[in-house]
Amino acid sequence: MLHASVRALKYFGALGICATIAVCTLYVTRSAAQSENKVHSQAQSEVSPIYGITIPAGYRDWRLISVNHLAGGGVKQVRAQLGNDIAIKALREGKLPFPDGSIIAALHWNEASSDENDKVLASGFPGAGLQSFVAGPAVNVQFMVKDSKKYAATGGWGFADFTNGKPGDEALHKTCFPCHVPAKNRDYVFTHYAPTP
Amino acid sequence: MLHASVRALKYFGALGICATIAVCTLYVTRSAAQSENKVHSQAQSEVSPIYGITIPAGYRDWRLISVNHLAGGGVKQVRAQLGNDIAIKALREGKLPFPDGSIIAALHWNEASSDENDKVLASGFPGAGLQSFVAGPAVNVQFMVKDSKKYAATGGWGFADFTNGKPGDEALHKTCFPCHVPAKNRDYVFTHYAPTP
Repeated sequence: MLHASVRALKYFGALGICATIAVCTLYVTRSAAQSENKVHSQAQSEVSPIYGITIPAGYRDWRLISVNHLAGGGVKQVRAQLGNDIAIKALREGKLPFPDGSIIAALHWNEASSDENDKVLASGFPGAGLQSFVAGPAVNVQFMVKDSKKYAATGGWGFADFTNGKPGDEALHKTCFPCHVPAKNRDYVFTHYAPTP
Repeated sequence: MLHASVRALKYFGALGICATIAVCTLYVTRSAAQSENKVHSQAQSEVSPIYGITIPAGYRDWRLISVNHLAGGGVKQVRAQLGNDIAIKALREGKLPFPDGSIIAALHWNEASSDENDKVLASGFPGAGLQSFVAGPAVNVQFMVKDSKKYAATGGWGFADFTNGKPGDEALHKTCFPCHVPAKNRDYVFTHYAPTP
């Protein structure tokens, strides 16, 4: 079960929100995705099922929305959410729904302890037991792409989950939208924009 | 002591590395900072002591280096490190020392639990006990500014720590460099560039 949980966590959405069980029936328009798959037939393996999304070029350069970490069941991850320009503007202005073209990326890493950091912490704060947990190996990256027409059946959002550049399967992608439904009043986005220190 | 630790954590460097005790004698060139304070006399309260650093405009737009979280002694923080263009280029190319003009920002937030996320986690992974910890209120932001001449006495780096836009005091800023010394072989920077998922 632990192993299952670890595997399952690859499937989490922007804030660990895509579950491995679909709790509602999911209606999706397949035609758009299917035609896109034909267009991108040479790179079909790099297109997310159902939604036909490829990894957006340069997403690692996008601006920071927030960070979080996940713990429990033997799973420990540190995470960052980035947004493209359209998404960042909407978040900063508190504008809902997100405009078409918004993309949110969720980057997940297994957390790693840092002996180097912990030694310095122990020196500076003797007895406090402070520990630093940093980003270790990458786990996966997920995207939410806003296109209110193309993805009308899923709240205007398309979803994609990639591990080592390869998309997860259709069963996985069917779980994304149902789990985002609880955030419907924030246009299905769980992540809040972190305040600027 | 707990309270002291919490307060002290405002003082941590890019990876929680500035301690509140200075473990070595610190030699710093004060003249540059003092003259800069005169130039910026109207905004003197927003200039870091010793190093004369102001909050860089637009730092919240910089690209992501990595994320981490800190735990222990009643302290729980989620953290992000961002870099300006010069710093990001150097990190991606693995180039050391960092070129002059590099700036690294460390953003620290108190972590907050998220009932909303946890409910979805419990639904998707019953019994796993998964919990999500997100960025809550901002704690502080810190900067390392590379200027090999101006800051020659401190490894070529100037340091700054701001809380609510106000810099910490001189005693605080004296602690920054000594704690970065263990990372001398990485040009005093603890943070590693997180792999792109």
